[in-house]
Amino acid sequence: MAVPGALVALAEELQRACLARGLTVALAESCTGGLVAAAITEVPGSSGYFLGGVVAYSNDAKEAFLGVPEQLLAAHGAVSPEVAGAMAEGARARFGADLAVGVTGVAGPDGGSAEKPVGLVHLGIARAGEVGTIEQRFTGDRPAIREAAAFRTLALLHAHAMQATP
Amino acid sequence: MAVPGALVALAEELQRACLARGLTVALAESCTGGLVAAAITEVPGSSGYFLGGVVAYSNDAKEAFLGVPEQLLAAHGAVSPEVAGAMAEGARARFGADLAVGVTGVAGPDGGSAEKPVGLVHLGIARAGEVGTIEQRFTGDRPAIREAAAFRTLALLHAHAMQATP
Repeated sequence: MAVPGALVALAEELQRACLARGLTVALAESCTGGLVAAAITEVPGSSGYFLGGVVAYSNDAKEAFLGVPEQLLAAHGAVSPEVAGAMAEGARARFGADLAVGVTGVAGPDGGSAEKPVGLVHLGIARAGEVGTIEQRFTGDRPAIREAAAFRTLALLHAHAMQATP
Repeated sequence: MAVPGALVALAEELQRACLARGLTVALAESCTGGLVAAAITEVPGSSGYFLGGVVAYSNDAKEAFLGVPEQLLAAHGAVSPEVAGAMAEGARARFGADLAVGVTGVAGPDGGSAEKPVGLVHLGIARAGEVGTIEQRFTGDRPAIREAAAFRTLALLHAHAMQATP
Protein backbone atom coordinates (compact mmCIF):
# COMPACT_ATOMS: atom_id res chain seq x y z
CA MET A 1 0.00 0.00 0.00
CA ALA A 2 1.64 3.21 -1.19
CA VAL A 3 -1.00 5.51 0.34
CA PRO A 4 -2.68 5.28 3.79
CA GLY A 5 -5.56 2.78 3.74
CA ALA A 6 -8.07 5.18 5.26
CA LEU A 7 -7.54 7.60 2.36
CA VAL A 8 -7.83 4.86 -0.25
CA ALA A 9 -11.04 3.51 1.34
CA LEU A 10 -12.63 6.96 1.16
CA ALA A 11 -11.35 7.42 -2.40
CA GLU A 12 -13.16 4.18 -3.31
CA GLU A 13 -16.41 5.60 -1.93
CA LEU A 14 -15.85 8.83 -3.84
CA GLN A 15 -15.23 6.91 -7.05
CA ARG A 16 -18.43 4.88 -6.61
CA ALA A 17 -20.47 8.03 -5.99
CA CYS A 18 -19.00 9.90 -8.96
CA LEU A 19 -19.23 7.04 -11.46
CA ALA A 20 -22.89 6.43 -10.48
CA ARG A 21 -23.68 10.08 -11.24
CA GLY A 22 -21.36 10.72 -14.17
CA LEU A 23 -19.44 13.39 -12.25
CA THR A 24 -15.83 14.36 -13.01
CA VAL A 25 -13.34 15.67 -10.44
CA ALA A 26 -10.17 17.80 -10.49
CA LEU A 27 -7.81 18.99 -7.75
CA ALA A 28 -5.63 21.94 -6.80
CA GLU A 29 -3.32 20.94 -3.97
CA SER A 30 -0.86 23.02 -2.04
CA CYS A 31 -0.21 21.75 1.52
CA THR A 32 -1.27 18.17 0.74
CA GLY A 33 1.25 18.22 -2.12
CA GLY A 34 -0.28 15.48 -4.27
CA LEU A 35 -1.47 13.18 -1.49
CA VAL A 36 -5.14 13.54 -2.43
CA ALA A 37 -4.40 12.77 -6.08
CA ALA A 38 -2.24 9.82 -5.03
CA ALA A 39 -5.10 8.37 -2.95
CA ILE A 40 -7.65 8.85 -5.74
CA THR A 41 -5.43 7.25 -8.38
CA GLU A 42 -4.51 4.28 -6.16
CA VAL A 43 -8.00 2.95 -6.96
CA PRO A 44 -8.27 1.02 -10.25
CA GLY A 45 -10.70 2.70 -12.65
CA SER A 46 -10.12 6.19 -11.23
CA SER A 47 -9.43 7.48 -14.73
CA GLY A 48 -13.19 7.08 -15.29
CA TYR A 49 -13.93 10.21 -13.26
CA PHE A 50 -10.64 11.85 -12.17
CA LEU A 51 -9.32 14.30 -14.77
CA GLY A 52 -6.19 15.39 -12.92
CA GLY A 53 -4.71 17.87 -10.53
CA VAL A 54 -2.17 20.58 -10.04
CA VAL A 55 0.29 20.57 -7.16
CA ALA A 56 0.80 24.30 -6.92
CA TYR A 57 3.47 24.76 -4.31
CA SER A 58 4.76 28.19 -5.37
CA ASN A 59 2.65 31.30 -5.82
CA ASP A 60 3.86 31.49 -9.43
CA ALA A 61 2.40 28.02 -10.04
CA LYS A 62 -0.91 29.04 -8.45
CA GLU A 63 -1.07 31.96 -10.90
CA ALA A 64 0.18 30.17 -14.03
CA PHE A 65 -1.64 26.85 -13.72
CA LEU A 66 -4.78 27.84 -11.81
CA GLY A 67 -5.27 31.50 -12.68
CA VAL A 68 -5.20 32.64 -9.05
CA PRO A 69 -4.84 36.44 -9.29
CA GLU A 70 -1.54 37.85 -8.00
CA GLN A 71 -3.47 40.57 -6.13
CA LEU A 72 -5.47 37.93 -4.23
CA LEU A 73 -2.25 36.21 -3.14
CA ALA A 74 -0.73 39.55 -2.12
CA ALA A 75 -3.81 40.74 -0.26
CA HIS A 76 -4.75 37.58 1.65
CA GLY A 77 -1.70 35.29 1.48
CA ALA A 78 -1.53 31.81 -0.02
CA VAL A 79 -3.19 30.28 3.07
CA SER A 80 -6.59 31.99 2.98
CA PRO A 81 -10.19 31.14 2.13
CA GLU A 82 -9.99 33.50 -0.86
CA VAL A 83 -7.05 31.63 -2.39
CA ALA A 84 -8.53 28.20 -1.57
CA GLY A 85 -11.70 29.18 -3.42
CA ALA A 86 -9.79 30.60 -6.39
CA MET A 87 -7.65 27.44 -6.61
CA ALA A 88 -10.78 25.27 -6.64
CA GLU A 89 -12.51 27.38 -9.30
CA GLY A 90 -9.32 27.51 -11.38
CA ALA A 91 -8.96 23.73 -11.32
CA ARG A 92 -12.66 23.21 -12.10
CA ALA A 93 -12.61 25.56 -15.06
CA ARG A 94 -9.25 24.53 -16.53
CA PHE A 95 -9.77 20.78 -16.26
CA GLY A 96 -13.42 21.16 -17.29
CA ALA A 97 -14.54 19.16 -14.24
CA ASP A 98 -17.90 19.05 -12.48
CA LEU A 99 -16.33 19.29 -9.02
CA ALA A 100 -12.97 20.55 -7.81
CA VAL A 101 -11.32 21.19 -4.46
CA GLY A 102 -8.51 23.58 -3.63
CA VAL A 103 -6.53 22.93 -0.46
CA THR A 104 -3.99 25.28 1.09
CA GLY A 105 -2.59 25.34 4.61
CA VAL A 106 0.37 25.40 6.95
CA ALA A 107 1.68 21.83 7.23
CA GLY A 108 4.66 22.79 9.41
CA PRO A 109 6.88 22.34 11.25
CA ASP A 110 7.92 25.86 10.15
CA GLY A 111 5.95 28.63 8.49
CA GLY A 112 3.34 29.14 11.19
CA SER A 113 2.41 32.47 12.79
CA ALA A 114 0.03 33.67 15.49
CA GLU A 115 -2.55 34.50 12.85
CA LYS A 116 -1.92 31.43 10.68
CA PRO A 117 -0.65 28.64 12.94
CA VAL A 118 0.69 25.26 11.88
CA GLY A 119 -2.33 23.04 11.19
CA LEU A 120 -4.54 25.77 9.70
CA VAL A 121 -6.01 24.54 6.40
CA HIS A 122 -8.46 26.21 4.05
CA LEU A 123 -10.48 24.15 1.59
CA GLY A 124 -12.37 25.54 -1.37
CA ILE A 125 -14.97 23.55 -3.29
CA ALA A 126 -16.20 24.58 -6.72
CA ARG A 127 -18.99 23.38 -8.93
CA ALA A 128 -20.53 25.27 -11.82
CA GLY A 129 -21.47 28.76 -10.67
CA GLU A 130 -20.74 28.09 -7.00
CA VAL A 131 -17.68 28.21 -4.75
CA GLY A 132 -17.65 27.47 -1.02
CA THR A 133 -14.84 27.46 1.55
CA ILE A 134 -14.19 25.67 4.84
CA GLU A 135 -11.59 26.38 7.51
CA GLN A 136 -10.04 23.52 9.49
CA ARG A 137 -7.44 23.34 12.24
CA PHE A 138 -5.55 20.10 12.59
CA THR A 139 -3.00 19.02 15.17
CA GLY A 140 0.01 16.72 14.98
CA ASP A 141 3.21 16.63 12.98
CA ARG A 142 3.57 17.42 9.28
CA PRO A 143 2.57 13.96 8.00
CA ALA A 144 -0.45 13.86 10.35
CA ILE A 145 -1.64 17.31 9.29
CA ARG A 146 -1.25 16.45 5.61
CA GLU A 147 -3.10 13.16 5.97
CA ALA A 148 -5.93 14.83 7.95
CA ALA A 149 -6.21 17.55 5.29
CA ALA A 150 -6.26 14.94 2.52
CA PHE A 151 -8.98 12.97 4.31
CA ARG A 152 -11.09 16.10 4.77
CA THR A 153 -10.65 16.94 1.07
CA LEU A 154 -11.88 13.51 0.00
CA ALA A 155 -14.79 13.73 2.45
CA LEU A 156 -15.79 17.12 1.08
CA LEU A 157 -15.76 15.84 -2.49
CA HIS A 158 -17.74 12.77 -1.44
CA ALA A 159 -20.39 14.85 0.34
CA HIS A 160 -20.86 17.09 -2.69
CA ALA A 161 -20.97 14.12 -5.06
CA MET A 162 -23.66 12.46 -2.92
CA GLN A 163 -25.80 15.62 -3.12
CA ALA A 164 -26.07 15.25 -6.89
CA THR A 165 -28.93 13.22 -8.30
CA PRO A 166 -27.72 9.73 -9.29
CA MET B 1 3.70 8.54 7.85
CA ALA B 2 1.38 9.39 4.98
CA VAL B 3 3.81 8.26 2.24
CA PRO B 4 6.07 5.13 2.18
CA GLY B 5 9.26 5.71 4.18
CA ALA B 6 11.58 4.59 1.37
CA LEU B 7 10.18 7.29 -0.89
CA VAL B 8 10.48 9.97 1.76
CA ALA B 9 14.08 8.96 2.56
CA LEU B 10 15.04 9.34 -1.09
CA ALA B 11 13.13 12.62 -1.32
CA GLU B 12 15.27 13.87 1.59
CA GLU B 13 18.43 13.02 -0.38
CA LEU B 14 17.03 14.75 -3.45
CA GLN B 15 16.20 17.86 -1.43
CA ARG B 16 19.72 17.98 0.04
CA ALA B 17 21.30 17.64 -3.42
CA CYS B 18 19.07 20.29 -4.99
CA LEU B 19 19.35 22.84 -2.20
CA ALA B 20 23.16 22.49 -2.22
CA ARG B 21 23.20 23.30 -5.94
CA GLY B 22 20.36 25.80 -6.16
CA LEU B 23 18.37 23.54 -8.48
CA THR B 24 14.58 23.68 -8.83
CA VAL B 25 12.36 20.71 -9.72
CA ALA B 26 8.93 20.19 -11.30
CA LEU B 27 6.89 17.07 -12.10
CA ALA B 28 4.45 15.73 -14.66
CA GLU B 29 2.83 12.57 -13.31
CA SER B 30 0.42 10.22 -14.98
CA CYS B 31 0.59 6.64 -13.65
CA THR B 32 2.07 7.65 -10.27
CA GLY B 33 -0.86 10.04 -9.88
CA GLY B 34 0.73 12.48 -7.43
CA LEU B 35 2.72 9.97 -5.37
CA VAL B 36 6.08 11.50 -6.32
CA ALA B 37 4.88 14.99 -5.42
CA ALA B 38 3.43 13.66 -2.15
CA ALA B 39 6.81 12.12 -1.23
CA ILE B 40 8.74 15.28 -2.09
CA THR B 41 6.41 17.54 -0.12
CA GLU B 42 6.37 15.26 2.93
CA VAL B 43 9.86 16.65 3.67
CA PRO B 44 9.89 19.97 5.56
CA GLY B 45 11.57 22.70 3.52
CA SER B 46 10.67 21.13 0.16
CA SER B 47 9.21 24.45 -0.98
CA GLY B 48 12.84 25.62 -1.20
CA TYR B 49 13.36 23.68 -4.43
CA PHE B 50 10.08 22.03 -5.50
CA LEU B 51 7.97 24.33 -7.68
CA GLY B 52 5.06 21.99 -8.26
CA GLY B 53 3.60 19.31 -10.46
CA VAL B 54 0.77 18.38 -12.72
CA VAL B 55 -1.15 15.13 -12.32
CA ALA B 56 -2.23 14.73 -15.93
CA TYR B 57 -4.46 11.70 -15.95
CA SER B 58 -6.46 12.48 -19.10
CA ASN B 59 -5.00 13.20 -22.54
CA ASP B 60 -6.79 16.56 -22.47
CA ALA B 61 -4.90 17.47 -19.30
CA LYS B 62 -1.59 16.43 -20.88
CA GLU B 63 -2.32 18.82 -23.75
CA ALA B 64 -3.76 21.72 -21.76
CA PHE B 65 -1.39 21.78 -18.78
CA LEU B 66 1.82 20.41 -20.29
CA GLY B 67 1.52 21.27 -23.98
CA VAL B 68 1.89 17.66 -25.12
CA PRO B 69 0.86 17.76 -28.81
CA GLU B 70 -2.38 15.92 -29.65
CA GLN B 71 -0.63 14.34 -32.65
CA LEU B 72 2.06 12.86 -30.42
CA LEU B 73 -0.59 11.27 -28.21
CA ALA B 74 -2.46 9.94 -31.24
CA ALA B 75 0.65 8.60 -32.95
CA HIS B 76 2.40 6.95 -29.98
CA GLY B 77 -0.22 6.64 -27.22
CA ALA B 78 -0.04 8.17 -23.76
CA VAL B 79 2.34 5.42 -22.55
CA SER B 80 5.34 6.05 -24.80
CA PRO B 81 8.83 7.50 -24.57
CA GLU B 82 7.76 10.36 -26.83
CA VAL B 83 4.95 11.42 -24.48
CA ALA B 84 7.10 10.92 -21.35
CA GLY B 85 9.71 13.26 -22.84
CA ALA B 86 7.12 15.84 -23.88
CA MET B 87 5.53 15.76 -20.41
CA ALA B 88 8.94 16.35 -18.80
CA GLU B 89 9.80 19.20 -21.14
CA GLY B 90 6.33 20.73 -20.73
CA ALA B 91 6.64 20.69 -16.93
CA ARG B 92 10.18 22.08 -17.04
CA ALA B 93 9.25 24.96 -19.33
CA ARG B 94 5.91 25.88 -17.75
CA PHE B 95 7.08 25.76 -14.13
CA GLY B 96 10.40 27.36 -15.10
CA ALA B 97 12.33 24.59 -13.35
CA ASP B 98 15.90 23.39 -13.81
CA LEU B 99 14.91 19.72 -13.81
CA ALA B 100 11.62 17.95 -14.50
CA VAL B 101 10.48 14.37 -14.88
CA GLY B 102 7.48 13.05 -16.78
CA VAL B 103 6.21 9.60 -15.83
CA THR B 104 3.60 7.60 -17.74
CA GLY B 105 2.82 3.90 -17.60
CA VAL B 106 0.31 1.11 -17.19
CA ALA B 107 -0.33 0.69 -13.44
CA GLY B 108 -3.00 -1.97 -13.92
CA PRO B 109 -4.79 -4.15 -13.12
CA ASP B 110 -6.56 -3.30 -16.41
CA GLY B 111 -5.38 -1.38 -19.47
CA GLY B 112 -2.48 -3.63 -20.42
CA SER B 113 -1.86 -5.12 -23.86
CA ALA B 114 0.70 -7.40 -25.47
CA GLU B 115 2.62 -4.38 -26.70
CA LYS B 116 2.16 -2.31 -23.53
CA PRO B 117 1.76 -4.68 -20.59
CA VAL B 118 0.85 -3.80 -17.02
CA GLY B 119 4.05 -2.58 -15.34
CA LEU B 120 5.49 -0.79 -18.39
CA VAL B 121 6.57 2.71 -17.38
CA HIS B 122 8.29 5.42 -19.44
CA LEU B 123 10.20 8.21 -17.72
CA GLY B 124 11.29 11.43 -19.38
CA ILE B 125 13.84 13.78 -17.82
CA ALA B 126 14.29 17.34 -19.02
CA ARG B 127 16.84 20.00 -18.29
CA ALA B 128 17.53 23.08 -20.40
CA GLY B 129 18.05 22.02 -24.00
CA GLU B 130 18.08 18.30 -23.24
CA VAL B 131 15.46 15.57 -22.87
CA GLY B 132 16.16 11.90 -22.15
CA THR B 133 13.87 8.91 -21.70
CA ILE B 134 14.07 5.59 -19.86
CA GLU B 135 11.89 2.50 -20.15
CA GLN B 136 11.18 0.35 -17.08
CA ARG B 137 9.14 -2.78 -16.51
CA PHE B 138 7.89 -3.37 -12.99
CA THR B 139 6.01 -6.31 -11.52
CA GLY B 140 3.43 -6.57 -8.76
CA ASP B 141 0.00 -5.13 -8.10
CA ARG B 142 -1.08 -1.56 -8.80
CA PRO B 143 0.25 -0.06 -5.53
CA ALA B 144 3.58 -1.88 -5.96
CA ILE B 145 3.99 -0.71 -9.56
CA ARG B 146 3.15 2.87 -8.62
CA GLU B 147 5.56 2.87 -5.68
CA ALA B 148 8.35 1.38 -7.80
CA ALA B 149 7.75 3.98 -10.52
CA ALA B 150 7.75 6.78 -7.93
CA PHE B 151 11.02 5.50 -6.44
CA ARG B 152 12.63 5.34 -9.89
CA THR B 153 11.45 8.89 -10.63
CA LEU B 154 13.05 10.22 -7.44
CA ALA B 155 16.25 8.27 -8.15
CA LEU B 156 16.42 9.72 -11.65
CA LEU B 157 16.02 13.26 -10.36
CA HIS B 158 18.62 12.61 -7.67
CA ALA B 159 21.15 11.25 -10.17
CA HIS B 160 20.74 14.28 -12.44
CA ALA B 161 20.94 16.69 -9.51
CA MET B 162 24.18 15.04 -8.35
CA GLN B 163 25.70 15.54 -11.81
CA ALA B 164 25.39 19.30 -11.46
CA THR B 165 28.28 21.22 -9.95
CA PRO B 166 27.51 22.08 -6.31
